[in-house]
Amino acid sequence: MEAIIVKPPEAGITFQNLDYKNNGIKIKILENGICGTDREIVKGQLNSAAIPAGSNYLILGHEAIGTVMEDGTIFKKGDIVMPVNRRGCGKCLNCLVGRPDFCETGNFVEAGIKGMQGFMGEYIYDDEKYLVRVPAGIKNMAILAQPLADLEKSMDEIINIQKRMIWRCSDNTFHCRNALVIGTGTIGVLFSLLLKTYGFSVTIANRRYAHDKESKICNIADIKYYNSATGYKFDDNSFDLIIEASGSSADVISQTMGFLKNNGIFGLFGFIRSGELSINSHMLQDFVYKSIAMVGLINGQKPHFEMAMDHLMQWKYMYPGIEKLLITDEIKISDREKITTVLTEKSKDEIKTRILWD
Amino acid sequence: MEAIIVKPPEAGITFQNLDYKNNGIKIKILENGICGTDREIVKGQLNSAAIPAGSNYLILGHEAIGTVMEDGTIFKKGDIVMPVNRRGCGKCLNCLVGRPDFCETGNFVEAGIKGMQGFMGEYIYDDEKYLVRVPAGIKNMAILAQPLADLEKSMDEIINIQKRMIWRCSDNTFHCRNALVIGTGTIGVLFSLLLKTYGFSVTIANRRYAHDKESKICNIADIKYYNSATGYKFDDNSFDLIIEASGSSADVISQTMGFLKNNGIFGLFGFIRSGELSINSHMLQDFVYKSIAMVGLINGQKPHFEMAMDHLMQWKYMYPGIEKLLITDEIKISDREKITTVLTEKSKDEIKTRILWD
Amino acid sequence: MEAIIVKPPEAGITFQNLDYKNNGIKIKILENGICGTDREIVKGQLNSAAIPAGSNYLILGHEAIGTVMEDGTIFKKGDIVMPVNRRGCGKCLNCLVGRPDFCETGNFVEAGIKGMQGFMGEYIYDDEKYLVRVPAGIKNMAILAQPLADLEKSMDEIINIQKRMIWRCSDNTFHCRNALVIGTGTIGVLFSLLLKTYGFSVTIANRRYAHDKESKICNIADIKYYNSATGYKFDDNSFDLIIEASGSSADVISQTMGFLKNNGIFGLFGFIRSGELSINSHMLQDFVYKSIAMVGLINGQKPHFEMAMDHLMQWKYMYPGIEKLLITDEIKISDREKITTVLTEKSKDEIKTRILWD
Amino acid sequence: MEAIIVKPPEAGITFQNLDYKNNGIKIKILENGICGTDREIVKGQLNSAAIPAGSNYLILGHEAIGTVMEDGTIFKKGDIVMPVNRRGCGKCLNCLVGRPDFCETGNFVEAGIKGMQGFMGEYIYDDEKYLVRVPAGIKNMAILAQPLADLEKSMDEIINIQKRMIWRCSDNTFHCRNALVIGTGTIGVLFSLLLKTYGFSVTIANRRYAHDKESKICNIADIKYYNSATGYKFDDNSFDLIIEASGSSADVISQTMGFLKNNGIFGLFGFIRSGELSINSHMLQDFVYKSIAMVGLINGQKPHFEMAMDHLMQWKYMYPGIEKLLITDEIKISDREKITTVLTEKSKDEIKTRILWD
Repeated sequence: MEAIIVKPPEAGITFQNLDYKNNGIKIKILENGICGTDREIVKGQLNSAAIPAGSNYLILGHEAIGTVMEDGTIFKKGDIVMPVNRRGCGKCLNCLVGRPDFCETGNFVEAGIKGMQGFMGEYIYDDEKYLVRVPAGIKNMAILAQPLADLEKSMDEIINIQKRMIWRCSDNTFHCRNALVIGTGTIGVLFSLLLKTYGFSVTIANRRYAHDKESKICNIADIKYYNSATGYKFDDNSFDLIIEASGSSADVISQTMGFLKNNGIFGLFGFIRSGELSINSHMLQDFVYKSIAMVGLINGQKPHFEMAMDHLMQWKYMYPGIEKLLITDEIKISDREKITTVLTEKSKDEIKTRILWD
Repeated sequence: MEAIIVKPPEAGITFQNLDYKNNGIKIKILENGICGTDREIVKGQLNSAAIPAGSNYLILGHEAIGTVMEDGTIFKKGDIVMPVNRRGCGKCLNCLVGRPDFCETGNFVEAGIKGMQGFMGEYIYDDEKYLVRVPAGIKNMAILAQPLADLEKSMDEIINIQKRMIWRCSDNTFHCRNALVIGTGTIGVLFSLLLKTYGFSVTIANRRYAHDKESKICNIADIKYYNSATGYKFDDNSFDLIIEASGSSADVISQTMGFLKNNGIFGLFGFIRSGELSINSHMLQDFVYKSIAMVGLINGQKPHFEMAMDHLMQWKYMYPGIEKLLITDEIKISDREKITTVLTEKSKDEIKTRILWD
Repeated sequence: MEAIIVKPPEAGITFQNLDYKNNGIKIKILENGICGTDREIVKGQLNSAAIPAGSNYLILGHEAIGTVMEDGTIFKKGDIVMPVNRRGCGKCLNCLVGRPDFCETGNFVEAGIKGMQGFMGEYIYDDEKYLVRVPAGIKNMAILAQPLADLEKSMDEIINIQKRMIWRCSDNTFHCRNALVIGTGTIGVLFSLLLKTYGFSVTIANRRYAHDKESKICNIADIKYYNSATGYKFDDNSFDLIIEASGSSADVISQTMGFLKNNGIFGLFGFIRSGELSINSHMLQDFVYKSIAMVGLINGQKPHFEMAMDHLMQWKYMYPGIEKLLITDEIKISDREKITTVLTEKSKDEIKTRILWD
Repeated sequence: MEAIIVKPPEAGITFQNLDYKNNGIKIKILENGICGTDREIVKGQLNSAAIPAGSNYLILGHEAIGTVMEDGTIFKKGDIVMPVNRRGCGKCLNCLVGRPDFCETGNFVEAGIKGMQGFMGEYIYDDEKYLVRVPAGIKNMAILAQPLADLEKSMDEIINIQKRMIWRCSDNTFHCRNALVIGTGTIGVLFSLLLKTYGFSVTIANRRYAHDKESKICNIADIKYYNSATGYKFDDNSFDLIIEASGSSADVISQTMGFLKNNGIFGLFGFIRSGELSINSHMLQDFVYKSIAMVGLINGQKPHFEMAMDHLMQWKYMYPGIEKLLITDEIKISDREKITTVLTEKSKDEIKTRILWD
């Protein structure tokens, strides 16, 4: 079969014909999604990228949907599915209960990234327990469920952490809670939509005016857009939750943390590339006085993929036309030149690019 | 009655005879504890110190035990009790459910600190619902229950936060978990003992050799002492939990955070006085990759005072002689000179100083 | 305005013109749903039915959707909303945090049932905090959100209770869990669909063959139908969860409880009308040996109404055509004769009957 | 070594010399406790009793403390320990996380009861992970930690279940909660003391006047005694929690369940021997209206043994002289006649009988 392979830490991709077989049921890949991690691997910049044991290449890709090719015990031929991308170490308690997002040994594997063949090929073979059903009606935006699953897990974790106190409002919802999301990439946009779904008031920020698609999304989902080109100016106690989803400089954390309210929480999702987070003694005292928490957020597992599918279905009703705003580009697998380009650099305005195998 | 009063933001204390009466049952004060917050108020350095509305002075003191002077509905004349020191705003949900430690408005009051008369007087009057029973057998160390209550709340919160994953070990205890406590003051020592009680392996650190009493405490409670005079050198992934209890410079956080293991948690308890916490982008990425959390910890409430009493009882069995090591000084109220001194500066080796009214 | 009123404990309804005004924003009623509780009130059989203080009649109806008639602070003129039907006692902690489903005093009120005017009128006036937004795309089935909210709360409670142990499967979902739902009325059918949405395998039971609509629903949602006309015969340990949703005789509980697996839970939702639940000593021992729980389930609150709206959106994708199977009858308000009939007796095959005011 | 062995389903015990060796460190038994389960095995009445695979006898005994005979990795020679009595199936998730009390397969083993050699011998050998440290100061009552561990788990489970709503009082404690404990055997008495420790008001009931020791215990621990010889008469809504700890007839459940308040919980701990629990339709409706739960409670694990040790230490301070009231008899192992007697029938007034091996 044909597949896109990489050989980290070398840069570059190869379209290769492979004689590939694995355990599990056979799934024909329909499409892949591309994210920043793919580009870092392709550029040879992701230190944690690792070729699977016993192989001399890594099939790229951790976002995929495909068609089941044969009847299994759970799925039937023709079912559309999405594979979960991280698999547990088999040893620590979190992995044993299906939560390798909290793997304690660090010996998990990740499809297309670390120690496990990815999904950018004509076929994959997989154990049915790692497959998530894709409802037919959302097939055209289901590829978003992988990144969204990471955010579902994040929200689940945040809400668990906040059970340390009463964080729900007097009507037992989250409607009195305000969130700031930093960054307008895939993660920033999806996180903002998810927070709206949870009932939060949401402000999304970037260091420029909103692009056209961003404005449209903010408009249909009642999200405020904040241009932080000249810094962040809010009242004290403005936010109950701040999500760093830009992965840019650490400065944005220092600049916004002070706007957290009592019992507030700062969620770190983006992989900060540069800068240094500086927290002065006054802010550290506030951390204590205000019972503030800061937490790193990563990786969704099977329940979160299912929650993501559920939310995508809702969004089609809540935000008509949302899929056209979120899926910003589609490329046929035969267009190798363009694929090579998008796997190297993000196009302006990209939210999610799909690679189509059919 | 006689009381020790202050007039923040002025420095200094006065022994004053007051004509004092309040709602609630009458309690004769037996003893007070002194902590760093008292000294900050006395030195005029605590910005949040505030005289109660309608008064022109603040009775100092938030750590006290006393004898009930009249039969109430819960307590009887002669019962020994400790009053809870923070009282809710009456409006936010956390205060309504008895948890002003998570007050959302910030309009709580604190005895002897902010907006409420304190406990350093011959008598207080209080609503029985704010009183905690002191078992007779631990009267000689019960004054420790107030600071310990803050730590009971902290551990309760930490364990709640860690319910985001499986944090208990394969025998469902915490025996596989390692904690580092920074600081050997009252808080550092009590937090270390509490963590031992929870089953953790504990290392306590200070920038010098252990004093004699510290060595003895470490010895009877199986706590490791770490001299950080030349910095912190541990293996990666050494700690599941780090508690900052020194309230010294922010540097200690930057220097130790990197030793946290996957799913680790950094608890900020001390009020950092100086320096700046710097977290570089590599550590911020680790925060994400390792699902690390950092959280501010403050103030115990009634259930935590009760837990503190429970633990003090245990400690007398688990650590014979511990009360003599923890109570480092006792001063009679008649010794005004010495009281003035201890309310201004901490004595070397102090863990807890008691003021005796009898 | 015109409204349907009752005067419990008298039987019968009256179509009455009222000069009706209340606090809150004005909402024009679009439609009402009818449930068994309405019929009990109309038949004078509901002991807890109570006319609001200061009135001499009770407007019937606790299921409604309507159009907001004026701009409020949360909603705008033209928004479609559903009012929450139970309101708190204002005193107990559960009511203060927006959870009168767990009211401890019992002094809550319920629209159209107990101490609060209901929704079967041309207009209502309500505080915006009790209104739930109805997404336009599900208007034709949104009336189901009120009964479904009760089930959302029930599932939320069940999952909370089961946090006493690990109840999720090794893939962290509920796909390994089996549920039996007794009863094929509105509640039985909606509970079965909800359990499927949560990932359970579901068997629904009634003492007869499935009617045509029931068969269709079971078919599109992959629910097993069980005809219990000759009793219940399953293997031991067949179910992790059994829901009594028939409200018929207590016998069904005795007959099915024994099929619960270790850590299983029996949920009582229906109001049992007759019979006696008998549990022999052998079954009681099993209750202990197997850590079984039995729990009464009642009333959803605002977060559950929102969850219900979310699930109805999903169901339109997951189960195409489901709304036509669930909404079994529609009656215009002008057809007084038919309304009087449906408010007295349930029609064969009824799942949900809507009264249309337009 | 000498040991007391049984051969279920045969009745009777034998004092036997065995050539016994097992994996783990060697522990010299100091004493055993006797409970009703031992007597059922000895009388050949416990259906679940089972000889370990590969053996033709079962060493009796699941309550023991002993002295470690050699240095291990956790314990040192001379340490006093208590072994946990139930061990997991090794397969289900609950057993993998150290909670075989919620074993899902049922394939756990229990020392001295089912499939695992017990502790009534001169020595045992055990994996250190199953050993719990006994503080020296409570050695004379530590044998109570095994039955108490079961109750610690029960309370932990009850409090987890009640997280479905706000169950804590407005001071965040349990002081406003009332409990009824049925039965005055070991379990009834220990459960009452534990509930007092948790802050509940407690009534303990039996169908006769209180014996002298029971009166004394009630007196020092402020527990109300209720003589139910002529039935149970309380006001409605009297109890938030009822614990069945008599293991007598199912009638007591039917007779008391109606006194539960809204959100109340009925805990089944005793193994009901006879009778039938009848719940009429009125009470079943109350189950629903009042959100009542009934739950089977069984078996404590390592964290609960540790909690039990903690509470025993507290009790010595809270209830001076309690150990003499709770330990009602001590028998030397050399007194074979008396041992044979106490292993067959419970003595009047027995709370806990210790067998001493020294």
